[in-house]
Amino acid sequence: MKALIYDGKVHLDKKHPVPERKPLEALIRVLKAGICRTDLEIIRGYLDFRGILGHEFVGEVKESPDPDLIGKRVVGEINVSCGKCIYCLQGLASHCKNRSVLGIKNKNGAFAEYVTLPIENIHPIPDSITDEEAIFVEPLAAAAQILDQVHIRPCDEVIILGEGKLGLLCAQMINMTGAQVLAVGKYPEKLEILRKRGLRTCFIDELDREKARIVVECTGSPSGLREAFKLVHPRGIIVLKSTYAERSKIDLSPIVINEITIIGSRCGNFSAAIRLLENKKIDVISLITSRFPLERALEALQTAEEKKSLKVILDITDS
Amino acid sequence: MKALIYDGKVHLDKKHPVPERKPLEALIRVLKAGICRTDLEIIRGYLDFRGILGHEFVGEVKESPDPDLIGKRVVGEINVSCGKCIYCLQGLASHCKNRSVLGIKNKNGAFAEYVTLPIENIHPIPDSITDEEAIFVEPLAAAAQILDQVHIRPCDEVIILGEGKLGLLCAQMINMTGAQVLAVGKYPEKLEILRKRGLRTCFIDELDREKARIVVECTGSPSGLREAFKLVHPRGIIVLKSTYAERSKIDLSPIVINEITIIGSRCGNFSAAIRLLENKKIDVISLITSRFPLERALEALQTAEEKKSLKVILDITDS
Repeated sequence: MKALIYDGKVHLDKKHPVPERKPLEALIRVLKAGICRTDLEIIRGYLDFRGILGHEFVGEVKESPDPDLIGKRVVGEINVSCGKCIYCLQGLASHCKNRSVLGIKNKNGAFAEYVTLPIENIHPIPDSITDEEAIFVEPLAAAAQILDQVHIRPCDEVIILGEGKLGLLCAQMINMTGAQVLAVGKYPEKLEILRKRGLRTCFIDELDREKARIVVECTGSPSGLREAFKLVHPRGIIVLKSTYAERSKIDLSPIVINEITIIGSRCGNFSAAIRLLENKKIDVISLITSRFPLERALEALQTAEEKKSLKVILDITDS
Repeated sequence: MKALIYDGKVHLDKKHPVPERKPLEALIRVLKAGICRTDLEIIRGYLDFRGILGHEFVGEVKESPDPDLIGKRVVGEINVSCGKCIYCLQGLASHCKNRSVLGIKNKNGAFAEYVTLPIENIHPIPDSITDEEAIFVEPLAAAAQILDQVHIRPCDEVIILGEGKLGLLCAQMINMTGAQVLAVGKYPEKLEILRKRGLRTCFIDELDREKARIVVECTGSPSGLREAFKLVHPRGIIVLKSTYAERSKIDLSPIVINEITIIGSRCGNFSAAIRLLENKKIDVISLITSRFPLERALEALQTAEEKKSLKVILDITDS
């Protein structure tokens, strides 16, 4: 099968063996996949991953120990947990000590014609959700995780820093709460996606003295946290969504002096994300800026690196 | 009056004018004061303070618009707030936008024979609390602030990093909750203070693979946060008590990957701290390692800098 490999450098392997599924896994034919910033970070050496890239996908189940799944269009949770360690037993499966992570850690990813995942990770997708929308289930679940972690109320003011893919999803997600949301960024055409949906937006260099009880940091850059320190009220909350390969020199004393709470936020609940897509609560299609067949994956990665890009889609198999 | 001044360098002024109290302030004759790590950080340039140092003290009210206070032995909250800004109006007076802070920001401190404070900052001290114990009200309130911010339960494991003055107070404070507390440090004679009171202690380099849901970082060093990242469970809480002048280069990705919450914690409630001292819930006297008259304040500061020191007391006036 065709597969996009990272083994120190990125290349398309046209004769990669089709993966063999384990007894409790399904074999899934990948239809479409999405390029995430994490994929680009991996190519820069983040997390030392080697193997097939990709963790945002929609596919069709070809083989499964559960016959009801066969032929179903599905998405898959990316953390493969052991079910036995103290974190799994505490219900923290996404923090499993022995976990592998699809296309991120010890598990071949979805930029390939076939992928395997444990059936417990798999979620069928209703017909009303298109393939392209389904690719957003994983990042949308990550955005929804914020609302699992922080009680955001209609009376709150929330500043979203960063108008990349995750920032645009987080802004729409938090807007559902009725809070007063201000999305702050640099690129007018990206902020326009939110403005069209009635959200307030602002350029970072035009931000006056507005502050908020809650700041969500989605810039993907260490400078975002420094900015967040300036924007959050004392005793306020910074939700940190960005990870980055580089270490940064940062003055952490505002955390103590202003008694700020920082909450790290990663993966979230797939069922909720699927329901939100089904109910058309979040616009994801406007976030797609280009589409490439898997054969042109290297070009797709380059395009995804461009500042003007948002979601770049890989068409893996014509469905 | 005699006063210990920092104006770029530290010196004892023997002819400093006695401060004039404002209409709603009391004039307090200082009896004893304690040297805090913040005083030592100020001398290194932290916060750009200029003036009379010192914020931990006990004194006797000499002049006051409230006649009931005159002659009373008192301690004082260090944040002097405006009562009018948005933070004051939200009940966040300790985060007042226009605040001055005793011996720390725009307000002469207590390493002097007299100090002034608004009467609303003043708390009388019961007779059963000695002068030396009363000096600990301010840092003990800072330790109590942790329990205001985080719900610590008997079923929790809590690791306290750092066995300086604040670490020893925090460990005793958190031990009150019934949680399983492990105090981690370097100096056997400091950890011994906790062991005598039945707390578990451990040297930092002997710490095995023990982790905890809650880690309290009191080391006063940027390396403490890195250590805390290793010791806290996924979705756990790091309470950050340390502030330091230096910026540090730190990999913040564990916050997101392990979905850690960091809570900055500063000043706390004086009434609670006074009650805890009155009820003999916390041993503070064991933390005093030396005493100096104000005339020998420079020597006292040097002693406070020594690694083996804990609380160094300045006897300001013989009471």
